[in-house]
Amino acid sequence: MSSTEDLDYPKTILQYNSGFLVSKVIFTACELGVFDLLLESGEPLSSDAIATRLGTSTTGMERLLDACVGLKLLAVELTQEGALYRNTEISNIYLTKSSPKSQYHIIMYYSNTVYLCWHYLADAVREGKNQYERAFGISSKDPFGAMYRSEEEMLKFMAGQNSVWSICGRDVLAAFDLSSFTQIYDLGGDFFNDSIPEAELYILSKILHDWDDDKCRQLLAKVYNACKPGGGVLLVESLLNEDKSGPLETQLYSMNMLVQTEGKERTAAEYSKLLEAAGFGEIQVKRTGKLYDAVLGRK
Amino acid sequence: MSSTEDLDYPKTILQYNSGFLVSKVIFTACELGVFDLLLESGEPLSSDAIATRLGTSTTGMERLLDACVGLKLLAVELTQEGALYRNTEISNIYLTKSSPKSQYHIIMYYSNTVYLCWHYLADAVREGKNQYERAFGISSKDPFGAMYRSEEEMLKFMAGQNSVWSICGRDVLAAFDLSSFTQIYDLGGDFFNDSIPEAELYILSKILHDWDDDKCRQLLAKVYNACKPGGGVLLVESLLNEDKSGPLETQLYSMNMLVQTEGKERTAAEYSKLLEAAGFGEIQVKRTGKLYDAVLGRK
Repeated sequence: MSSTEDLDYPKTILQYNSGFLVSKVIFTACELGVFDLLLESGEPLSSDAIATRLGTSTTGMERLLDACVGLKLLAVELTQEGALYRNTEISNIYLTKSSPKSQYHIIMYYSNTVYLCWHYLADAVREGKNQYERAFGISSKDPFGAMYRSEEEMLKFMAGQNSVWSICGRDVLAAFDLSSFTQIYDLGGDFFNDSIPEAELYILSKILHDWDDDKCRQLLAKVYNACKPGGGVLLVESLLNEDKSGPLETQLYSMNMLVQTEGKERTAAEYSKLLEAAGFGEIQVKRTGKLYDAVLGRK
Repeated sequence: MSSTEDLDYPKTILQYNSGFLVSKVIFTACELGVFDLLLESGEPLSSDAIATRLGTSTTGMERLLDACVGLKLLAVELTQEGALYRNTEISNIYLTKSSPKSQYHIIMYYSNTVYLCWHYLADAVREGKNQYERAFGISSKDPFGAMYRSEEEMLKFMAGQNSVWSICGRDVLAAFDLSSFTQIYDLGGDFFNDSIPEAELYILSKILHDWDDDKCRQLLAKVYNACKPGGGVLLVESLLNEDKSGPLETQLYSMNMLVQTEGKERTAAEYSKLLEAAGFGEIQVKRTGKLYDAVLGRK
């Protein structure tokens, strides 16, 4: 962003305003199966052929494909038979259902659930609480009840989490030397009510950001009690900078925690304080530069 | 976008996915009056003070302000009394209600109307028609009936159009030497049914993009008949590249025409063809590099 340029013409603001158009174009092309069809077909296809095979209007499909060209998710070649479209490499890798790094499931979750919750962002800021009630008519007192409101919804959410893990998991697990821990427990399920088994290393992946400080302290104390001496806890979270400057993605996710949960994103210092309050020490922090960072504490 | 980088980690796709979060942050900060308050206060304020004066939760407001810092719409200073926020210069110019270049009204229209219509983009592509029915329970056969469904809605839409004109109007009017035209008619109102008065120059600003080719030809023929010999017509529209490569904003607006109207964005060649079919000649095209371009035809 060149700010002098922007004072004369607000290019950056116009881009921000169009952000939701961009999101919905990629979400819709995924949902309608454009990238899957173009991967399977093995050859470039016309907008008419794509519309016919996916059962959509031609006028809508042509525009969707052209917007995907503008976003470099598709490439187009103008031939004597008209325009022919094919996937770009990033679309093959990340936007087809069958790819091991597919982001399809998280995209569907964003498109069908998160997008509608965010329509009520102003209400969320006014009230300081999540917007499941306005978006889906579901009580906002139980965010996980809302997320897991049906088995289908739960599976969609879980599959979405796996999409993210497929691109961020390696960096998080490589952040520290964990080779000394042989007994590892990946925390999940109804951990506030169920007992937590003894282990050497507990992984809390995107768990604390769902809860307020009181519940985080309560959960970490329970983990500390179960943990073997010399063991530890690995937090997988997106870390805010201490000086409030960013990262932007994490600031946006913190707003999403407002819209969808009882939690928030935190700084490394805030997580360290929560860990220390539960008894953990020798705290190490590793920023990965990707979506998720890592914090390790030891008993 | 570095595509090699993106093959390893889909930074660009993640940005696209977060586009709607960015849009709703700027929309919500405008709606709640954050930029207006910070302009009026004349001094940086804490998140607590802003929340109190705007009647919102503190937990929501703090996160909204921090996300605006990440977007460079606000600046933050960490003081002994805590974090203090102030507007950046682009926010003062474009995001406060009182500024002559304020984008406030178009932003409110985007946030409250367009955002919700776009939730149904996949349906729009499937059906090839606008989504007023799903979004607002209003028949999709009469898009302007839907846009103007109340005087309040109409005024909001009109004010939004003025916001855009305040940043693009000068370039469009400077595109050609229009000094020879003394009698100018800015087409608006119920122009398919009302008669069009005689004039030397007709301005059709963002009118043809609302309609299909048949209706465009019908309207241009009516304008041609009313036009004085030697007169002309100035189209103000966002032009697509002939090779389908972009501009991205125009491709996105063309999708918006699908979601909200009966029309689409067109290339310069397509507008020239429509003008020629109505009898206009000596067609000149001027791209401004901003949101709206200009096409001039003469009788």
